[in-house]
Amino acid sequence: MLPILIDYLSPYAYVAFKAAVPLAQRYGLALEPRPVLLAGLLGANGTRGPAEVPNKRVYTFKDVFRKAAVRGLPLAPPPAHPFNPLLALRATWAAPAEARVRFADALFDATWAGGPGVEDPAVIAAIAQRLGLGDLVAAAETPAIKARLRAETDDAIARGVFGVPTLYVGEELFFGVDSLEFVELALQGRDPIAGVDLARWRDLPASAQRRGSAG
Amino acid sequence: MLPILIDYLSPYAYVAFKAAVPLAQRYGLALEPRPVLLAGLLGANGTRGPAEVPNKRVYTFKDVFRKAAVRGLPLAPPPAHPFNPLLALRATWAAPAEARVRFADALFDATWAGGPGVEDPAVIAAIAQRLGLGDLVAAAETPAIKARLRAETDDAIARGVFGVPTLYVGEELFFGVDSLEFVELALQGRDPIAGVDLARWRDLPASAQRRGSAG
Repeated sequence: MLPILIDYLSPYAYVAFKAAVPLAQRYGLALEPRPVLLAGLLGANGTRGPAEVPNKRVYTFKDVFRKAAVRGLPLAPPPAHPFNPLLALRATWAAPAEARVRFADALFDATWAGGPGVEDPAVIAAIAQRLGLGDLVAAAETPAIKARLRAETDDAIARGVFGVPTLYVGEELFFGVDSLEFVELALQGRDPIAGVDLARWRDLPASAQRRGSAG
Repeated sequence: MLPILIDYLSPYAYVAFKAAVPLAQRYGLALEPRPVLLAGLLGANGTRGPAEVPNKRVYTFKDVFRKAAVRGLPLAPPPAHPFNPLLALRATWAAPAEARVRFADALFDATWAGGPGVEDPAVIAAIAQRLGLGDLVAAAETPAIKARLRAETDDAIARGVFGVPTLYVGEELFFGVDSLEFVELALQGRDPIAGVDLARWRDLPASAQRRGSAG
């Protein structure tokens, strides 16, 4: 099992998800998409997503376009961004576990590979229908599924997750497209930080503090 | 000329600087370290550095340790972090341009490769002495050098820089250790975004807005 935390809002999650599919296969692991609400992670950490900082916004799109291009992945903006990803995230939890990779893959394509986006319930319904998954829009609106998305987001926050994509290898978090290289090392039992005294880093004293750095 | 914006405070800047030295050589370019005040960049963008967000702090150290390890670079924490990098940044601007790579390299080693850090003026003075660069501590305290660091930081902000390490290839910014791959493509005239219609990305409408995302 290779869990990957995703929100369709993030083009980096799209690129990482697409790259994680063959990666998981190479290691004989089942990729497990875990939709979470990126807005919840950012809120809990008091941070902003890269597309929310004006100077970072266009750079971020350039950067993710480059990351997609070198991996041979198409990338085109959805009709709007940011958009409301709630229904798509909930519908993914409503899908049967064994169909979740296929469904998430199709929703990512609808968002970032030139599709119509995933804000329109009719688009989500049509994708579910095409994949033979029944009416996932109705299922997405049940209290149990709504609670599931909240619980998964809360669980991620409790584990220290601060953004998507994040992958878990055991208890270890790996954040961002570029961390896939380290996911592979960890899966091979060769994580460079194994054996490093992290307490030394954690307990490092500060000898200066930036004004305003607390907020 | 391959400019790289650095602040000794950033271990990512250390890793990128060390990797940029042979990269510049491969392309027959002079690497040009440009010290800037990371705190100034963060202040101008209203953001926090990764080590300032509690959940990101230890992750960041793990991540940079992994990035150093796969490149065969030693990485050890300085005596304190954050620390005041002002004198080291100014002293670098006070060094003769042709000695700046050697001096920055030695200051990075003193900070991140198990050295005594670069907050103590005596350490900076000793490094300058050892490299035959004279009294750079006195030179660092002149009004002209102080103004230079401010002007370089302001220039970076005006170009849209939001963090270090940042490299320039022409007018194009490349941020972070992992963007070195794209620096190389740009130097080869193969930047994947060349020819992409970025206006489409820039003008993307929002169909939802996160509460509190403006701050």
